[in-house]
Amino acid sequence: MKIAVVYHSGYGHTAEQAKAVARGAQSVSGAEVTMIPVAEDIAWDAIDAADAVIFGAPTYMGSASAPFKKFMDESSKRWMERKWANKIAGGFTNSASQSGDKLNTLVSMAIFAAQHGMIWVGVDLLPGNNNSKGSVEDLNRLGSSLGAMAQSNADEGPDKGPIASDLKTAEHLGKRVAETAARFK
Amino acid sequence: MKIAVVYHSGYGHTAEQAKAVARGAQSVSGAEVTMIPVAEDIAWDAIDAADAVIFGAPTYMGSASAPFKKFMDESSKRWMERKWANKIAGGFTNSASQSGDKLNTLVSMAIFAAQHGMIWVGVDLLPGNNNSKGSVEDLNRLGSSLGAMAQSNADEGPDKGPIASDLKTAEHLGKRVAETAARFK
Amino acid sequence: MKIAVVYHSGYGHTAEQAKAVARGAQSVSGAEVTMIPVAEDIAWDAIDAADAVIFGAPTYMGSASAPFKKFMDESSKRWMERKWANKIAGGFTNSASQSGDKLNTLVSMAIFAAQHGMIWVGVDLLPGNNNSKGSVEDLNRLGSSLGAMAQSNADEGPDKGPIASDLKTAEHLGKRVAETAARFK
Amino acid sequence: MKIAVVYHSGYGHTAEQAKAVARGAQSVSGAEVTMIPVAEDIAWDAIDAADAVIFGAPTYMGSASAPFKKFMDESSKRWMERKWANKIAGGFTNSASQSGDKLNTLVSMAIFAAQHGMIWVGVDLLPGNNNSKGSVEDLNRLGSSLGAMAQSNADEGPDKGPIASDLKTAEHLGKRVAETAARFK
Repeated sequence: MKIAVVYHSGYGHTAEQAKAVARGAQSVSGAEVTMIPVAEDIAWDAIDAADAVIFGAPTYMGSASAPFKKFMDESSKRWMERKWANKIAGGFTNSASQSGDKLNTLVSMAIFAAQHGMIWVGVDLLPGNNNSKGSVEDLNRLGSSLGAMAQSNADEGPDKGPIASDLKTAEHLGKRVAETAARFK
Repeated sequence: MKIAVVYHSGYGHTAEQAKAVARGAQSVSGAEVTMIPVAEDIAWDAIDAADAVIFGAPTYMGSASAPFKKFMDESSKRWMERKWANKIAGGFTNSASQSGDKLNTLVSMAIFAAQHGMIWVGVDLLPGNNNSKGSVEDLNRLGSSLGAMAQSNADEGPDKGPIASDLKTAEHLGKRVAETAARFK
Repeated sequence: MKIAVVYHSGYGHTAEQAKAVARGAQSVSGAEVTMIPVAEDIAWDAIDAADAVIFGAPTYMGSASAPFKKFMDESSKRWMERKWANKIAGGFTNSASQSGDKLNTLVSMAIFAAQHGMIWVGVDLLPGNNNSKGSVEDLNRLGSSLGAMAQSNADEGPDKGPIASDLKTAEHLGKRVAETAARFK
Repeated sequence: MKIAVVYHSGYGHTAEQAKAVARGAQSVSGAEVTMIPVAEDIAWDAIDAADAVIFGAPTYMGSASAPFKKFMDESSKRWMERKWANKIAGGFTNSASQSGDKLNTLVSMAIFAAQHGMIWVGVDLLPGNNNSKGSVEDLNRLGSSLGAMAQSNADEGPDKGPIASDLKTAEHLGKRVAETAARFK
């Protein structure tokens, strides 16, 4: 079972989140995970061959970063040919704001996946840090459902953020997408 | 394999769309389809027992109609208990505008399904009526991906709208959700 | 200059946020603020007479609460008559999650306002709590732009949440909408 | 009063829509309109100097085209400096689908404008072509509110599409944004 993690990272934070997603996917028996950064020559064949594809990008100015959008636009030939139909899909995003407009990035990814005829899998986690006993160390501390959200401070590098809870949430998404792909296959 | 079509219809147009979705689902071998109108006492047990749930509502003032939203809110106990996790889900909407804000209704349904841990299936159809040889009789004539869209004239009853192409698109969605549920099961 | 704050509150948290919005609006010279809870008989005339309308609702299951949606649907006669065209509008929402799907509620409110021909004013604040020196006490600590977001713990009453920073952010929105209405008038 | 029309066009259809928006804006007394294509060196100073900015892009794969997204991302320095705060803003988009995911592009533009502290103006038109006497020649034939939508056939050049009604709708948006900017100034 092949899982592709297709992502863009501007400063390294989203790359850390992507690695966590990959770790989670890899933890599922039989999973073979490929990291596909869109800033380089895109490994289209690896995406075409995947059973599941997990999309990731930072949220810049309210939506997925331009390099990731370029990848989305360039996938239109595959869209026309329905090459990715029925693959399992998921998404993740990172930004400096706690909430900000991260949801808009995830919505655009889910719409994009639907255009390709893909099947969308969210995080399937109740929200964390939403009660008096909660903390930023809770799994799904930002309370996202459609995909995995992470937050990284604007003045700190990827060695400091996303924090452990966000990476665990990303791992959870990777594992869940891989498990769903296994079940579906 | 059990499929629930959970819907609200204000004037009967969305009910026609719901029936078409149900016909499509029913066409899949082994499918047992239940229609669940939210305006009546909601058959929660039937939803809980379903392998797949297809949500439908008219788009009123830019989002799903209030009676459907009431159903969404009332599902929160089940959300807390993760009762619907891993069910297959899909959505459809009707309004008088050709595009209007129907997409916002489908987005809200997909987010709602993700909150419940459901797995979202779109229409998987290229857009119709998007070229010089196209017509309103094309399948997916409105070009939607996340769910099925239909358009019904504001001054005509459900005997006239949604038109045949929109009903066929709805049937396609029902069939696709049922097939995906079968494969997933 | 008349400002209407039209809101629903399920457990009192959004009502606190609404009061803060009203305080902010009231702080502008010449402003006359009316609170209009949608759970009671709606004061439609007061909305019709307003120069600006600020919409508020909790985010339940990914979008504005059903009672607020009911208000939205019931405004359709006014939509048809273009009664609210060119009024200034803004929006706010509260939920237990830090981010959750609050953005979807604000998007639906902005679309709703656009249907009415209203002019949409956001918070106009850089994000708070997005760097190593930030804290939950920062103004706009959730980093929202389209409208004001607040977070209240699921296990605490409106005496504890939204916290002070969220109420100040709500005040800021109220003030900004009123100032914009004054300038526009 | 200065109006900037900032747009990307892949094949010329959105450029036609942009010209129509500009014509509408220019028709308002005192308006001075500048066309700013983002594919070339961006005239940032002209945007900074504008009283109103109207954003336009084709919808590709469910959201604004990558070249337009690049412009959005590159505006982040101005966002930080709040250079565009309180400018009037509006948006438009074109794609081959009748509805498709055009709304998602407009939502992302409205969120983007809100990040900049801009004030959003929609089309303020009831939907056209939504009843038995309607036709594709109606103003606002696609029934959009948040911004202007246009549809152009995938197999025809910009000499054929967007059709006249969509261009008139675009003109209407340009005029409305300029009138609002005049009133606000």
